[in-house]
Amino acid sequence: MEDTRHDPAGPYLAQMRAQAPLVHNITNFVAMNTMANVLLAAGASPAMVHAREEVAEFAALAQALTVNVGTIDPIWAEAMEQAAQAIRAAGRPWVLDPVGVGATRFRRAVCDRLLRLRPDVIRGNASEILALAGGGATGRGADSADPVEAALEAARDLARRTGGVVAVSGPVDHVTDGTQVFRVANGHPLMTRVTALGCALNGVIAAFVADDRPALPATLAALAYYGAAGEHAARHASGPGGFQIAFLDALHAMTPDQLSAAARISAA
Amino acid sequence: MEDTRHDPAGPYLAQMRAQAPLVHNITNFVAMNTMANVLLAAGASPAMVHAREEVAEFAALAQALTVNVGTIDPIWAEAMEQAAQAIRAAGRPWVLDPVGVGATRFRRAVCDRLLRLRPDVIRGNASEILALAGGGATGRGADSADPVEAALEAARDLARRTGGVVAVSGPVDHVTDGTQVFRVANGHPLMTRVTALGCALNGVIAAFVADDRPALPATLAALAYYGAAGEHAARHASGPGGFQIAFLDALHAMTPDQLSAAARISAA
Amino acid sequence: MEDTRHDPAGPYLAQMRAQAPLVHNITNFVAMNTMANVLLAAGASPAMVHAREEVAEFAALAQALTVNVGTIDPIWAEAMEQAAQAIRAAGRPWVLDPVGVGATRFRRAVCDRLLRLRPDVIRGNASEILALAGGGATGRGADSADPVEAALEAARDLARRTGGVVAVSGPVDHVTDGTQVFRVANGHPLMTRVTALGCALNGVIAAFVADDRPALPATLAALAYYGAAGEHAARHASGPGGFQIAFLDALHAMTPDQLSAAARISAA
Repeated sequence: MEDTRHDPAGPYLAQMRAQAPLVHNITNFVAMNTMANVLLAAGASPAMVHAREEVAEFAALAQALTVNVGTIDPIWAEAMEQAAQAIRAAGRPWVLDPVGVGATRFRRAVCDRLLRLRPDVIRGNASEILALAGGGATGRGADSADPVEAALEAARDLARRTGGVVAVSGPVDHVTDGTQVFRVANGHPLMTRVTALGCALNGVIAAFVADDRPALPATLAALAYYGAAGEHAARHASGPGGFQIAFLDALHAMTPDQLSAAARISAA
Repeated sequence: MEDTRHDPAGPYLAQMRAQAPLVHNITNFVAMNTMANVLLAAGASPAMVHAREEVAEFAALAQALTVNVGTIDPIWAEAMEQAAQAIRAAGRPWVLDPVGVGATRFRRAVCDRLLRLRPDVIRGNASEILALAGGGATGRGADSADPVEAALEAARDLARRTGGVVAVSGPVDHVTDGTQVFRVANGHPLMTRVTALGCALNGVIAAFVADDRPALPATLAALAYYGAAGEHAARHASGPGGFQIAFLDALHAMTPDQLSAAARISAA
Repeated sequence: MEDTRHDPAGPYLAQMRAQAPLVHNITNFVAMNTMANVLLAAGASPAMVHAREEVAEFAALAQALTVNVGTIDPIWAEAMEQAAQAIRAAGRPWVLDPVGVGATRFRRAVCDRLLRLRPDVIRGNASEILALAGGGATGRGADSADPVEAALEAARDLARRTGGVVAVSGPVDHVTDGTQVFRVANGHPLMTRVTALGCALNGVIAAFVADDRPALPATLAALAYYGAAGEHAARHASGPGGFQIAFLDALHAMTPDQLSAAARISAA
């Protein structure tokens, strides 16, 4: 793993757009529309497919997969496992969003099974990462009750167990591969007042790590891109309605050079 | 029940925002994203969870619950009953939106079962309230074929049977606890040209009545807040696209004082 | 079938708005909200209902039905068949959107069964139309890998087999009833950067052909209306966020006369 402090983020955006990866998403009902629009605005190609009768066949066609347990039920959970197995068999990466994992026993059990399939990237808020790692955090829905820093040890532990990358979202994101830790300081508080922006971020991470590019620098670049688009949107919007529109436009308009200039990634 | 004619609406908004209640929503697929954004813009914390394996456990964590039968199937209907029972057991309120209840026998049967769990607030259009009360109204989807006034007796009857509050939506909303009737004259016709704004309103009502605040004045305040935001948005938008954006911004920006000044609540 | 080259599109819009048809949609989770907003902006009345316990009863109330297999599973597929049978029995039209039909065996089998129920209109991209007709196209999700012209013979063949109309979406749409072929040149590339606009178009087609108006000219008018709204929106938006808002406003504001003037329909 090279030191990514000096690895500019822009080329990852350029490479993603050149490939326009097909990202297969099994996500929650709240996020589906937003996630598809975010991926289209960024330059990727989203698809949502979940039936057990086709989900593995479809995942094998995709360049990356995202799984989000926000509105799971047992049948969808089964489909998530099948898809994760299929994309792993195809040698491509998948990203897990353990929404509200601490809230119920069912949710914890589903995430434990998914964890065994070794997601290439896990992204959640501090409460979710703590709960996923086995800590006692009690999330309430998608909102975090814990500060990012409190989840760093849990994130490192999860990264070591999965062999992947773990990102803890917050005012400043923290990202680790189990050894190194990086901080991404891009973003804006209005992003927490629009639903599904966290969920949709996992689609962007998947697009950046598609076809198994090195997951740590690609994840850092995706987080910086997303946060920088949020900063740009906040300069053009005063409320959450206008913000979500300006945010999609910013994802669409940002150039790789602008991203490299705006990215605030540093070793922690 | 105090006379709410002189009860200003603003403090209910301030109290809701101070608490930022977790509102658990089991709603239709069309409304989920809009409802989450409306609740976030207003200052509440939305969550959507529906699996029978966790829905009761999750409802017990929430400050209020909403149930909307727009895209029900038998499994979701079962989850709705479990969640309503759980939140009642926790001593917290729930709100029912009987979308299109008059359209099919299945829908009527599901709503009859939910009605037995005594929702703290029911909100629907005139056709829905008439059908729910057992009248012969025939709704076609979410649109009302009947004037609000025609549903007043049905609303009073429902309120008496459930011990709750019933709101009939229309150009002027009517709200009753079975004894008193109030009118809320805020709103704008463009609100009927954006999908899911009626559904999302039930989330706002739930946030205002969370933790079992007195349901009648809190419901009146929620309706006034929602309608006043619509009036404000209509001054900044000429079509339904711009309107939905301006509406979210207005929900987010409105202060309690502005609400008290804008609210048009009167005894009927 | 009269020659529609000289059949202005505007009156179809006026007639649709005068009727405000109830359009019953069984569509994918990504598209539901967008589709409802598009139909409301256009002037129709959307409803989403899918449970097998009520779907046939509800379809019989509607003026038209749309079916979209984007996020199907076996239970939804069964409901789609029931609804299509019911609306046919009621003598009203239905529209099929075979999203990603070439991607998996399951999807192909579901679409084959739906095809036997003879949709009045089928609309898809070139890859989807080729795959639906039995060609070897391999779609990846909702994006087409084939040019429109390559699918013309397949479209004609499908139209003859179903007795309906087939529209192939692309930079220039091609529409055929199996004999005649027309081109609709309205539209803008930004329409492909907003999710669900293709899916939502099928709702507009259904609204235009509701109550069994002649399907070919009504479909041409619907496509011209949709594309012209896209052109108008693109003059007011620079990115996909602002575009979707301006697009809804354009659908809402366009008059029949403006549509007749903007429509670019020609015999192929």
